[in-house]
Amino acid sequence: MFFYLFMTKLVCTLGTSPGGIFETYKNLRGGNYEVDKTIANATPIEINEVYVIRTSDKAVEFAWKLVKAIFACCREKGDEVTIADIPIPIQDITSPNDFKKFKNAILPKISVGDYVDFTGGRKAMSVAAALSAREVGAHVVTTIIPQGEYSGISKIIEELKGKEDLVERAGNGDCESIRDTICKLISNEAKTIMLY
Amino acid sequence: MFFYLFMTKLVCTLGTSPGGIFETYKNLRGGNYEVDKTIANATPIEINEVYVIRTSDKAVEFAWKLVKAIFACCREKGDEVTIADIPIPIQDITSPNDFKKFKNAILPKISVGDYVDFTGGRKAMSVAAALSAREVGAHVVTTIIPQGEYSGISKIIEELKGKEDLVERAGNGDCESIRDTICKLISNEAKTIMLY
Repeated sequence: MFFYLFMTKLVCTLGTSPGGIFETYKNLRGGNYEVDKTIANATPIEINEVYVIRTSDKAVEFAWKLVKAIFACCREKGDEVTIADIPIPIQDITSPNDFKKFKNAILPKISVGDYVDFTGGRKAMSVAAALSAREVGAHVVTTIIPQGEYSGISKIIEELKGKEDLVERAGNGDCESIRDTICKLISNEAKTIMLY
Repeated sequence: MFFYLFMTKLVCTLGTSPGGIFETYKNLRGGNYEVDKTIANATPIEINEVYVIRTSDKAVEFAWKLVKAIFACCREKGDEVTIADIPIPIQDITSPNDFKKFKNAILPKISVGDYVDFTGGRKAMSVAAALSAREVGAHVVTTIIPQGEYSGISKIIEELKGKEDLVERAGNGDCESIRDTICKLISNEAKTIMLY
């Protein structure tokens, strides 16, 4: 018997807000996204791996912990997905060299047919991610979170900053005490669009 | 006698804040930017034309009026530059079709050797601009405005919203009554980086 395993990867940039990554994952998985017919059909995509590319800034580090907790506590039963943290040793992109470092960290992680989500992080990161995606023939996606929902989510992030140990435990699957709050970080109105 | 005229264009995306465009122009013109030696030397670049690509959102329209006023009232004497408004009939990029419209509006405006600045506007606009630039072999630049300065500038924009007629007149060269305020919109700490 022969099993053909095709691993599909979602590579996301992350900023100080976790918003976008889980929503993109959920929307791709559910076939709930908008795409031009010349590029693809909006069919469900089984994502097996999520790579989170981020800087080493303190606030971004915390956002990564929140993303990890969301995936651990809020994904549907039976969803098999691994999530990997890819921190880059810069604080921000403020020079051509930072940009190069960021791009060089993303490029080897993506292959043709993967999905690259540029929703999170600074504009220069989004640009680095999208250019890298196009260089290797990966898809480019982004998720739009309505401004109204965004401010509510920001408030919850502020609250959770005082509970870093609980967030960290949630990331390791110990969700009980904090699941409701963590899962409120997910936007219900988020819209995912596929551009390539 | 034969004069060879080489027109160099700066094509910029614009969002709700005018910040970035004039700074990029000034920094390129002054040779005051950071670039990897493998791409170029940081020599002064004489920009003859500035194209501003923007959506038709109300707040973005006002930002355009501010950019026009800044160029009319704050540029150095002798700087010959024309500035063109390129409004695209969308409010925002919220679908693959919006993205395509935005990108199709930029592409025919840029040529090899031009400079594309993705500092202003939403991330999807920045991505559209950067991808377009790479497709035609244009340079890609962005200007970083320190967060501290940014909030001061936002306050001045709020003030100026009540003086739209004065701003409009300033854009047509009638600067006297409002020049000081208009020119305070320019960041002094802005840093321009060239990525391609």
